[in-house]
Formats: sequence, structure tokens, C-alpha cells
Amino acid sequence: MTRHVYRFGGGQADGHADLRDLLGGKGANLAEMNGLGLPVPPGFTITTAVCSHCQAHDGSYPEGLEKEVEQALEAVEAMTETEFGDPVRPLLVSVRSGAAASMPGMLDTVLNLGLNDATREGLAASSGDARFAADSHRRFIQMYGNVVLGVSHRMFEDVLDEVKFAKGAELDTDLSAGDWLAVIERYRALVLDETGEPFPEDPRAQLWGAVGAVFGSWSNARAVTYRELHGLDHAGGTAVNVQAMVFGNMGEDSCTGVAFTRDPSTGEPSYYGEFLPNAQGEDVVAGIRTPRPLTAGAVVDAEAPPMEVAMPAVYAELTAAFTRLETHYRDMQDIEFTVQKGKLWILQTRNGKRSTKAALRIAVDLANQGVISRAEAIRRIEPERLDQLLHPTLDPAAHTRVIVRGLPASPGAASGIAVFSADEAERRGSAGEDVVLVRSETSPEDIHGMHAARGILTNRGGQTSHAAVVARGMGRPCVVGAGELVINHDTRSAKALSSSFAEGDLITIDGSTGAVMLGKVPTISPELPDAFHELMGWADSIRTLRIRANAETPVDAETARRFGAEGIGLCRTEHMFFDGERILAMRQMIMAENAEERRAALARIAPMQRQDFVELFRIMAGWPVTIRLLDPPLHEFLPANLDELGEVAARAGLDAEALRRRATELAEANPMLGHRGARLGISYPEIYDMQVQAIFEALHETADAPVELEIMLPLVFSRTEVNVLRSRIAHVAEAVTAATGWTPSYTVGTMIELPRAALAAGSIAESAEFFSFGTNDLTQTTFGISRDDAGRFLAGYLDAGVFAVDPFVSLDAEGVGELIQIAAARGRAARPDLKLGICGEHGGDPASVAHCHAWGLDYVSCSPYRVPIARLAAARAAVESRDGTPDSAD
Amino acid sequence: MTRHVYRFGGGQADGHADLRDLLGGKGANLAEMNGLGLPVPPGFTITTAVCSHCQAHDGSYPEGLEKEVEQALEAVEAMTETEFGDPVRPLLVSVRSGAAASMPGMLDTVLNLGLNDATREGLAASSGDARFAADSHRRFIQMYGNVVLGVSHRMFEDVLDEVKFAKGAELDTDLSAGDWLAVIERYRALVLDETGEPFPEDPRAQLWGAVGAVFGSWSNARAVTYRELHGLDHAGGTAVNVQAMVFGNMGEDSCTGVAFTRDPSTGEPSYYGEFLPNAQGEDVVAGIRTPRPLTAGAVVDAEAPPMEVAMPAVYAELTAAFTRLETHYRDMQDIEFTVQKGKLWILQTRNGKRSTKAALRIAVDLANQGVISRAEAIRRIEPERLDQLLHPTLDPAAHTRVIVRGLPASPGAASGIAVFSADEAERRGSAGEDVVLVRSETSPEDIHGMHAARGILTNRGGQTSHAAVVARGMGRPCVVGAGELVINHDTRSAKALSSSFAEGDLITIDGSTGAVMLGKVPTISPELPDAFHELMGWADSIRTLRIRANAETPVDAETARRFGAEGIGLCRTEHMFFDGERILAMRQMIMAENAEERRAALARIAPMQRQDFVELFRIMAGWPVTIRLLDPPLHEFLPANLDELGEVAARAGLDAEALRRRATELAEANPMLGHRGARLGISYPEIYDMQVQAIFEALHETADAPVELEIMLPLVFSRTEVNVLRSRIAHVAEAVTAATGWTPSYTVGTMIELPRAALAAGSIAESAEFFSFGTNDLTQTTFGISRDDAGRFLAGYLDAGVFAVDPFVSLDAEGVGELIQIAAARGRAARPDLKLGICGEHGGDPASVAHCHAWGLDYVSCSPYRVPIARLAAARAAVESRDGTPDSAD
Repeated sequence: MTRHVYRFGGGQADGHADLRDLLGGKGANLAEMNGLGLPVPPGFTITTAVCSHCQAHDGSYPEGLEKEVEQALEAVEAMTETEFGDPVRPLLVSVRSGAAASMPGMLDTVLNLGLNDATREGLAASSGDARFAADSHRRFIQMYGNVVLGVSHRMFEDVLDEVKFAKGAELDTDLSAGDWLAVIERYRALVLDETGEPFPEDPRAQLWGAVGAVFGSWSNARAVTYRELHGLDHAGGTAVNVQAMVFGNMGEDSCTGVAFTRDPSTGEPSYYGEFLPNAQGEDVVAGIRTPRPLTAGAVVDAEAPPMEVAMPAVYAELTAAFTRLETHYRDMQDIEFTVQKGKLWILQTRNGKRSTKAALRIAVDLANQGVISRAEAIRRIEPERLDQLLHPTLDPAAHTRVIVRGLPASPGAASGIAVFSADEAERRGSAGEDVVLVRSETSPEDIHGMHAARGILTNRGGQTSHAAVVARGMGRPCVVGAGELVINHDTRSAKALSSSFAEGDLITIDGSTGAVMLGKVPTISPELPDAFHELMGWADSIRTLRIRANAETPVDAETARRFGAEGIGLCRTEHMFFDGERILAMRQMIMAENAEERRAALARIAPMQRQDFVELFRIMAGWPVTIRLLDPPLHEFLPANLDELGEVAARAGLDAEALRRRATELAEANPMLGHRGARLGISYPEIYDMQVQAIFEALHETADAPVELEIMLPLVFSRTEVNVLRSRIAHVAEAVTAATGWTPSYTVGTMIELPRAALAAGSIAESAEFFSFGTNDLTQTTFGISRDDAGRFLAGYLDAGVFAVDPFVSLDAEGVGELIQIAAARGRAARPDLKLGICGEHGGDPASVAHCHAWGLDYVSCSPYRVPIARLAAARAAVESRDGTPDSAD
Repeated sequence: MTRHVYRFGGGQADGHADLRDLLGGKGANLAEMNGLGLPVPPGFTITTAVCSHCQAHDGSYPEGLEKEVEQALEAVEAMTETEFGDPVRPLLVSVRSGAAASMPGMLDTVLNLGLNDATREGLAASSGDARFAADSHRRFIQMYGNVVLGVSHRMFEDVLDEVKFAKGAELDTDLSAGDWLAVIERYRALVLDETGEPFPEDPRAQLWGAVGAVFGSWSNARAVTYRELHGLDHAGGTAVNVQAMVFGNMGEDSCTGVAFTRDPSTGEPSYYGEFLPNAQGEDVVAGIRTPRPLTAGAVVDAEAPPMEVAMPAVYAELTAAFTRLETHYRDMQDIEFTVQKGKLWILQTRNGKRSTKAALRIAVDLANQGVISRAEAIRRIEPERLDQLLHPTLDPAAHTRVIVRGLPASPGAASGIAVFSADEAERRGSAGEDVVLVRSETSPEDIHGMHAARGILTNRGGQTSHAAVVARGMGRPCVVGAGELVINHDTRSAKALSSSFAEGDLITIDGSTGAVMLGKVPTISPELPDAFHELMGWADSIRTLRIRANAETPVDAETARRFGAEGIGLCRTEHMFFDGERILAMRQMIMAENAEERRAALARIAPMQRQDFVELFRIMAGWPVTIRLLDPPLHEFLPANLDELGEVAARAGLDAEALRRRATELAEANPMLGHRGARLGISYPEIYDMQVQAIFEALHETADAPVELEIMLPLVFSRTEVNVLRSRIAHVAEAVTAATGWTPSYTVGTMIELPRAALAAGSIAESAEFFSFGTNDLTQTTFGISRDDAGRFLAGYLDAGVFAVDPFVSLDAEGVGELIQIAAARGRAARPDLKLGICGEHGGDPASVAHCHAWGLDYVSCSPYRVPIARLAAARAAVESRDGTPDSAD
């Protein structure tokens, strides 16, 4: 005979986790917890097969079901020493649906089933709380009346409001036991009115009514639609779970509580939780009584002793359950429990939510205990979560008043005096002041000010605007697009809706939330816990992808090394041309009439550029350093605003009119696709000559502990460009050797950032020793989307489902990814030892890092502050490509 | 025994064309002409094997060579009835090098070898011209002295200058026979001085000296370098050709002349040429005597009868040779001949240069005569050459004064009064005046003025600037980038270096040469010869690629049909939004605050747009018409110059400040990669809704003779975009059906103009019924080059060999082409009947058309004026893919 009812309770169960199809998810889980020997309130599951039978037979049950239910009920009665319908020791049950796949739309839960006037008295007596019993009763009628009998919830609420109004009561808690009894009477009248039938008083009638309603709900419109949308089988059916109610308010030997098996904010392996004696869960929620701790801390409050002291036996049983649960689920658990008359019942357990710090500690501890593998520990931490450990955060205890909100563009909090120009930022910053740079938007000529500032605030642009990208690269907190802030650069002040500030005023920004505050809000410095270092060590030993950083300043390079970068994957030399003297020389170079004049202007920059490289090389001694030759179009070095030209011209000793003419001449319709990168190198060979010479001279100066030098050509699309430029590099190298007698060791490679370059990778690789995929530009050209202009339609494209995710944030595997794979395959076919990496924003995105691992790249390079994230992401990718994706992460 | 010497002459030859490796190119060709029975001056070839032997044996000749040469010389003497070294009837010869592959750097030619004091007298006697004989002698010494004996050419010239100075002579022709004899003496003294040896007087010594010099020149530095650069074999060696000299100045039964076997300017099948009795070739060049015609025209000048009359027997022999040559070479020949004492000698024959008109006529005639196949006739015409037939040209007889030159940007000549604004062009144009629009540069808002003008002139931009591209599309003559022209739009005048003109002055431009002239220069209207139509008919029957046109105006559509376009492949609807009223409504639409206001503004454009389509559909009845929905970013519809905003605002009834704000808001960093195409359609669905409705209504109105409607979505990169937009199109179609009871028949397809679209073509094709490759944008995104900005480095890239040809002119087969092939393959795999075409500038480029044929596309679409070129190019591609590429085209 087919079994229709599976019992569980007393640490045993008829079913087990694998019977999910038959018992539904909830039923299988209850069986599993019982199988662990945990004290779960007993009950039984009516199988999904019964549901299918009902569907097929006009709602009639299979033969023998009633008897099986009756026997299962008896077993529950025996285990709980109660009886269904008994007025003294009444058994109350919950009835819940539960299909194999979770599904909204079906009948959810009926609690306290079994209550009627008689059993309510029993509940009142055993709990010593008539009001509680009456409230439970009226709740049951309301819930049952609604979900089983179909009476509108609103109608019950109206009745309740009327009674409260009549009593002059504001809150439910203002009503007495007697009041609730009156509500019960009126509820019953309502049900009779609405359904034409009296509310069922017989517990068995209540039970079968609820069971029928659960099965019926399988076919209601919402559930059917849901299954259709999600391609689920209509034949599957739902199971019905019937489980004994337990109560923590049955006297001083009863209680209710919640517990974490470890500290969810620190991850320390100490029980963490609280309980309320002689109380129901609602009492905890209501906050009327103060819960007590589970364990004895340094001091024990004698008036309100911890559970460890107050109920030592039950406490021992509870902590034994903790261990069993952690061992079984191999993770920190968040547990709800109730003690009814000295008997412990575990109501629910699940993996507990935790802070990042705790997540690290727990994963590392579990691995060290041998509960999980190191690989599993790595898999437990979402790399993105590390970000919050790496930046200062606002002190949560501090009082804050947010005057305006923008977009969170670069995480961390920063306070400082507001300044409205990059020059002022640099002036005050180098004088030792903490400044926050406030600009409408930023451009490359603001870089020195951004470096000098603690944080950056703009009222324009999105999360991929210049300010955002550069700030993330520098690890500076940044808020962008605070549109309600009106910035006046003339008066050097800014106005929000209800507040304003001027240059010199202290402000605070939170780049993790986008909040802008007046004054200095205390912040907490990031402190990397031991578990972080331990886990990152494991990650490093497991990953195969190397992680480098994008850096050009000594500060960034040092940050990168501190965070574990294995060299520099992208040193953007143009960032070295904006500071002080250099921008003047750069502008003279741009204004030069011929190569001779250009060379003269460049000669003034050369020693500074060489010194930059010397510093960088010292920090990165022994590691690879990829230096990209000048990339941006020349007009980026002229003031963006033509109005500023006069001032600039005066400072640079140039003719304003000539400068204006040159600026107009250099202006481009689409600078992204303009005269930049290798195109500059071919048009003005003297620029790259100067850079390459400075690089070689710096390498010579640091020859005692040299870096592994890689010279990178930007924006090429053909082998010929590489040939032309690398022969000039060789020429400079020969000249340096001739002058010094020392021969530089270096390789030459290219950015692959144009579709044409990816397609021509086979021939390019014949002349290039490495490729670095410039995924920012490659994404721009592959999609034909300018990152600077995408803001206007990106949101719409995400809404319309054209993008699942912003392709500038996470690599487009289908399109851009195919080009990367084509280039990698063709490049390696031509040159088997070709080194492959990516640089750009995607290098710090965990999903993109996983792709790079899968595509067989050698390294990714990202902002210094993203290095730990990339290291962990690379390790996860290695684990997952080895072990497969886990069923459930974290 | 190996033969070292191959003889030819008297209509016979030892060798033939296939012995190229042994006889060299020149020797093999001489053998071939003899093989045809043509009267070629006799001679012999010393093989390349002899050269190799010399190389290997320190310059010594193989055994028996001298004897073979002696015998060959005797044969020549016999045929020419002369004798080498004979003072009465001296044999003179030329000596030339000739390797298998032509190669600069080797000894070229020694003429009149065999002359000395004795033989010179014989020459003087037989020619009756002592001065000629002496001049020939001194030329021989000079040539031999230089190339064989290594005396500097300069030194001989110095001697000549001294003699001329002493005689007070200015020109060589001022010198008498006696003077030349003096020069000869001084030349001999010079050679003795310089070489230490007297100049060789013995003809045999001269001959062996020359032969040795030819073989030696195989190893000179220039020839060696050339072979290394071109990967030629150093072992190959050169042959030496020794050929009898013949003279046309040996009396009245002698002459010299040139002839074309057909008329090289019209292609008519009548002999065309001239001759000079008793003269050498130099006399023709010197222009002292007037040559006479070969054939008798309407009138015969009795004083100077044509050759047909003067020398009927030789004339008959000559014309017989014409026929033999044309039959053999299967093409019109350009022939040099000499008659020496009544004996005809053919000196040279080659395929004759001809005008395009003649080329067509000749190819068609030859095919109709069965000399060549129709396929070969097609192969004979470079499609690009047709361009000059399709546009008006300046009357060559007219007097012109060019005041400034720009770049030729769109072919044809045009005269009209200069106007300096698009509005003025439209006003005067619609009043019936011919105008030439003069602007610094043009932008989309000038389109109506460009339409109204006969020609366009700018002083900025290159051949792919807006003005150039649009003018070519419209078939308007256009000169761009006339940088020396200073245009003042305020005073409405322009100033060149030495002239100026103002609004209302007549000017003429020649878009084929870039010339700008004052006044009205007479032009000749294009007249398509019958042969053009006949050849195009053959082309149409042979080609498999369909040819459509890019057109949006009725004028363009009619031009396209007249030139044989098989439908419209690209109707750019944005061009319809710039005229008069529409731009105002468009600007109101752009200023609208919400969809409602946008719809109201669009409703004003709708009836005009519908009418546009009605006209287009009537012209194209029965043909496919691809309509591209709005593509450019909205800011293109606002004035490019912010200064003009006030005026524009006033005219449109808009608030100037609001308009300025909106313009700033819409401004883009990289408009090419901005908010345009499908992105606009998704952001502002009401724009496409209006367009689609107008299209369907127009289709309804022309339902009696409908076009094959194809609606095209621009700038997509994913199937989702297509799905979103095509469901809206379906929605509009349903609404039209609901309103009219008529159901539109249409297909929906996409531009493939982004690398991402090409890669995602498989999934896009599931939702698109056709692809049109937008090769302009695809080239921009694949290379990462903005066409508008490329001018600054394009020339440098062509110089450096990065580009073999501008990729915006001719498709980049390697990169862009691979993307096209990927998209075609994936698209057809997903949808086997997917229609594939290209639109854009490349559609009219013959090389690109050939690629499209090879890649299996269904059609190309190009400017109306390029349609014949594309038809012919498609036919050539079909022929060549069938028959292979010919050895020599045209």
C-alpha cells in the first residue's frame, strides 16, 4: 500500500531530504532535521501524491488517508503529551503547504489550529495567560477564516477596529482578555454571515478544512500562472505539513529565544543570542520585556540570569544542538527555539547572516576546524564584500545630517574642508590640510587636485564618469551626480535644498552610500582582520591568475604592493603630464610648429618623467611593470573650457590667440576614436622617443634591483603600427646602450582594445610579446557606446533587459568576451608564450575576473584598492572551475 | 650542345613567348611578334643562361658563344641587306638588357651601335643627311661612353655646352653637321682621358663591350638591392637583345609613324594615326614638320597626301599588320612603325590607351566581333572609369581661370551664383536660380540647401567630410577643403589669393579636379554612349549581386532608377527632418518635457513624412525599399553653433535659455557612440511610432502598386533591442489594420554596424529578416577611428604603410570583412533566407563590391550616381570568381 503520510518527531522521521518531490521542500527539511536527532516539534507530512490524486479525482482523497492521518496525529499526541481537542492539554498544530519548488500564491500557513472555546481554556490554564489564549484564538479564526474559508482579511480588521474604537483602545495591547473574547464572538458572526456556515469548532473538521484548502490552492490562478511563467509541472502537487505548536509561555520552565552559533558581527566562536522566560516570540518582537543573554559574560545579572545559569540542562541541550547543526550544515546557524515546560524545541535553523569581518573569521575557523575545505572557505566569501573592509567607514554611532545624496561612486568615507578647484586642493593639501574637492565634473587636468584631496564630490556624471573612474583608481571616496547640489565655482560655494557650504567649510562624504554631510563626521579606519590575511593566503595558493595593479604614482604603487599586487599591469604615463611644471611644457610641446620645437619642450619633461619611473621601479623591484606610452589625444592637455585659455596662455607664456586656434584645430568630433594612442606615436615620434628614453634611463638607474620592464603601445589595430613603433624603441635602446654601455632588458606589447586588433591578433602577436586587453575601450568600440555618453540610455537599457548588467562594470562575455577569446587563441597560435592580461575597470570585477580565468589569461590588472577582491575572485574562479559551481554560495 | 643565341626576324623566330625565363621578357616578346609573321627588325637574343655562366666563371663566356653570335649577325645582315661595319650599307644595331622580370638598375639601351667614322659616312649617304648621321654618331658615343664605359653623362653634356657656347648656339638644332663632327672628336678625347683607352671603333669590339656591360649590370648595386627588396632570385640573370636599327629617313620611300588600330577617343573602328615621310621618330617629337594622316578623310590634301594615297602598298601591309595584331592581342593596339626604303618595320606594339567612351565602344565591338567574350568585355572596363561619363564636365575648349583649388570631393562641374547659407540656397534655388552653396563646412542642417544647390564648395574638411559624403550621395559636384579661400559668412563673400567673389556672383566649380573658377564656364552634359548601355546590359545578365541605391528624395530615387538601381537599400529618414517646417517641429519635439508633448510635435511632422514616403513608393513601385528609422542623436537637429541658438529659438517660438540648456544637456563627448539609432527608438518610442505609422499609411496609399517594404533598425547590438522595437512596429501595424481594414506587408531587419552586432548575428537573425551592413560605422567602430577626425593621421598612416588604402573608401577585408563574414554565416545559420546587403560609401567602391560578391551577400546599395559603377563591378566580380583573375586587365 502506498504511504500517504510521513511522520517526524522525537529525533526520527519516516522521510529524508531526498524525498523532496514527494514531501515538498519543507517536509523534506523537517524530516532531515529530525533525522539529525534534533528536538523539532513533531508532526507529519501528507504527500504531494495525495494532491495529485485530488486533482485527478475531483478533490476526493485516496483510500486510507484518513486513517493514516489519525495514526500520525496520535503519534504527535503521544510525543507532546497532549491531545487534539482536549480541553486540558490540547494539541494545537500548524498547517503549511510545501511543494518541491517554492512557489508564491499557494495557501501559506494556519497557526494554532485546534483552538475552540474549550481548548482555549486549556491553553489559558497551561500558560496562565487568559489574554494570550484569547488573542491566539481570535488570530486563528481570522487566519483560518481568511485563507481557508475565503473571508476577506479587511472585514476581520474592520471588526477589530470597531471593538477598539468602542473601548477607546489605540493598540491591540490595550485590549483585555475579555475584549478578545468579544472579538471572537463577532468574528464567528462574520464568518457565518459571509459563508452561510458557522465557523468549525471541531479540531478535526478544522484540520481537514485546512488540508483541503492547501491542496485546492495548488490550482488557484496565481499559482498556475507562476508555474507557467517558470516552466514548472502542473502535475507536481503540493504536500501538507502538520506540526505541533509549542509555547514558551507555559510558566517559568518555559522560554523562547534566538541564537547564532557564532558572533555574527565578529565571527568569534562564541554563542550569541538571547531569550525571554515564559514568553512567546511576539513578546520579543514587541520589545516590552528585555531579553536576557544566553551565556554568562563577565558579569551576571542576578535578577535576570543568563540561560546558561537559569536553565543549565536545557542550555546544555541547546548548545549540543548548535554543534550538531553547525556540523551538519557546515556553517554558522541562526536558530529559533522554544522551551515548553522544560522541553527544548528547535523551531527553525538557517545559515546566519553576518558581517564581512565575521564571514571571513567563520570561514577561516571552519576550515581550520576541518569542517569545510580551504577551497570551500574561499567560495564562502563574495569578493565584492571585501570592499567594505578596505576603506574608512562612518562611525555608526555618530550623529549625521545628510544634506544631499548623490551616487556612491568610490567607497569609503572622508571628511575635509571643501575646495572648489584642483589647484586649491593641491595648495591646501600639500599644506597638510584634509580637503574634499567639489567640482561640477572633473577632467584630466584636475588629476593633481584629486590626488591631493581626501574625497571628491561632483553634481554631474554617473558611476562611470571621469571623477568616479579616477577616484576608484586612486582609492579616494567619491560621490558623483549629486544633482540637487548647486555648485557655484565663481563664489566657491555650493547650495543644497536646505543647507549650503562654502570653500573652507568642513564637509563629509560617504562614497559607499552617496551621502553628503556638513561638518566632520567621525570615521572608523579600516583594519584588516587576521582572518582576511589567512584567507587571502589560501586564495593566493589556489589561484592561477596573477593579479597586478593599475598605478602610476608611488602612493598607488605602494598601496598596490601592500594589497598583494604582483606588479603593475598598467602605468598610464599621461597622468604624469598634468602636474605643475609638466603641463606647461606639455602645452608648449602641443604648440610647437615642428619636431625640433616639440623635442625642446619634451626635453624639459624628460628628467621628471625619468624620476617618476625610478620611484616606481624601486617600489616594484623584481615585479613586472607595464608602461603604456602616451594615449590620450593632445587636446586633453589643453584647458577643456575655452574661456580659461587666456589664463592658461599667460601662465605658459603662450599667445592666447594661437593657443585658442590650436585648441580649435585639435578639437575632435569623437575624441575616443580620434588622434590618440599609437596614432600619436606615429605622427609625433619624438613624444614616444622621450618617454622610452626616460624609461630606459630609469631602468638603468635601478639596475641593481630591476623590474621586469614591459613597454606597451596603445590603440593599435595592425602589426605594421607595432613594427613602426617598436623599431623606434629599439633605436632608442641602442642609443642608450651606446651612451652607457648597458643594455636594457625589456619586452614590447600592445593594448588590444579595438575589435580590429582582436581580429588581427595573429599577425600582431608576431611583433608583440604581450597583449593587455583594454576592456574599457574594447567595450566602447564593440558596442559602439561611449562610456561618457551612455548615462542617458543605460538605465533604460537595463530596464528593457537589453543589458543584464552594465557592460562597463562587468565584462560582456558574449560579445567583448568572444573578441578576447579570438585574440587570445590567434595570438597564442602565432606566439605560444604570448603573455595575456586585462587592464581597466573590469580587472577588479569578480565576474569579469572569473571570465578571465576561464579564458586562460595570465593576469588581470585593477585599481590598487580592488587587488584583494581580484585575488579572491581569481581563487574562487580556480576553485569553481575545478570543483564546479556549488549549489549555494555563502 | 646548348643553344646560347636565339634568332628572330623575317616573320620567324627560334624562340617563343613561353621561353621567358631563358630569353627574358623582352626577348620572348620579340620572338612572339616574329612568330606572328610581323615585319619586326631582325636580331637575336643571348640567353640568361649565358649571364649565369658569366657570373659563375668570372665573366668568361661559354664555349661557342662567339660563333653563334657571328652566325646570328650574318642572318641579320642577310635579312636587312646590310653588313656590320660596312662603310656603304652599314648594319647598325641596338643592344638592350632583358630579364625574366622587369627590373630597374640594369643597363638599359645602347642605340646605333656599329657607328664609326666609316659607317657614319655610309649612313649619311643612304639617308642623304650628313647632319643626322653625325648627330646619331655623337649620341652613340655619349650613350656607349656612359653606360658601357662608365664616363659621367654630365661630362658629355659639359662638352656639348662648351661647343654650343663657342658657336653661339642655343639649341642642339642650331648645330650643323660640321659642329657635330667637332663634338665627336671632343667626345673621343674625353673617353680617352677618362678611361685611358680610345673609344672602340671596331663594331664587333663595340658589340662585345655592350654585351659584357649588360651582363655586368645584373650584379650592380641597384639591381641587387631591387632583387632583394622584391624577393627575386639572384641566379636568374638577364638576356641581351641585339636588334637591327631601321631608319625612316632614307628617302621618300621611307617614313616613320604611329597608329592606333581604332580611334582612342571615340573607339570607332577606324585607323587613327599619322606619319612623316623621310623622317626619324625625333622629327615627329620635335614638331618641326606637320605629320600627315594615315587614311584619307573627306578631303585629301594633294600637297601632303595621306599614307593610304602616298604609299598604298606599304599602307596595305601596315593595315594587315593591324588586323593581325588586334586578333592576336585581342585589343586595340598602339603601334610604332618605320618604313625604310619601302620596307615596313613594326617597332613596337602595345594595348593602346583610350578614353572611357572609347574603352566601352572597343570592348563592346570586340565582343560583338567575337574577338573577346562578353565577360572579357566587362573585365576590360575599370568600373571607376564610368564615373566620368555620369557627370557634367567642363568644356575643354572653354577659357578658364582657376582662382583656388580644393580637394575633388564629388565629380562633375557646376556653375551658379554663390550663396553663403543653406536657406538662401533654398530660396534662390526654388526661385529657379542655379546656385553654388559656399560654406566653411556643412552640417546636417544644411541638407536642404545642398539639395537646392547645383554644387557645393567648402574651405574646410576632407574627402570624407559631411559635405563630401552628402554631395556624393546626391550626385552634386563638390569641392572641399579649399583652404586658401577665406570665407566670411557675415559679409557673405569669399576671398582667394588674387580674386574674390560675393553672394550673387557667378562661380564654377569642378568636383573632378577641385578647381574653382569665376564666372560661368561652359560645361558638357554627360551623354551615355550606346556601348555603355550595351555593356551594362551584359553586366546585368552576368552579375548575381543586386544593386540598390541610397536615396530619400524623389530626385535621387528617380536618378537611381534611371541608372538601373533595383530598389532602395537605404532611405535615411533623418534627412527628411531638416526641411523648412519640419526642423521647427523636430526642435519642439526635442524640447518636449514628456512623451505627450513629443507626440504632439511629431504629429505635425507625420503628414509630411507620409507624403515623402508616398512619392518614394510611387517611384520605386515593385522594388524593395529599405527605410531606416531615425538614426542620428537628437542634438544634430539643434544648431551646431550655440551662437545661433537665439535666432533659432525665436523662429521656433522657443525660449532661448531653455533651448541652450537642452543643447548643453544633449551635447555628447562622442556622438558617434552616443544616444542614437535604436537607443533613441527605445528611449523615445513615440518617434519610431510616428515614422512607422507614416510608412504604413504611405504603403496603404500606394497599395495598387506597392513596394517591397523593409523597415530597418539602426545601431542594434542585441536581439533584445530588435524584439522591443519590432513588437512596437507590429503594434502600429495592428492599429493601422484596425483603422483601415488593410494589412501591411513588410519585413523588419537591422543595420549590422557594430562589432557586437556582427558577433551576435546568430541570435539577432532570429528576430530580423534582413541585415544591412553599415560599413561606414562598422569601419569606425572596428578600427576605433572617427571618420570626422581621421584626417589628421590618415595620410601618415597611408605613408607608413599601415593602410594600403583608406578603409573608409575601400572595405578592410581583413578586419571589417571578417566581421561581415562572421555575421553572414551566423545569420544565415539561424535564418537560411536572411537577406544580406551593404549600404554606405563602400557600396559604390568596385573593390568592396567584389568582396561583397565573394562573401555571398545579396545586394549592395550605393549613391545613385555610383549605381552603374556598382553594376559593372558586380559583373566583373562574377566573371572573375568564375574565370579567375586575368593576367592583365584592361
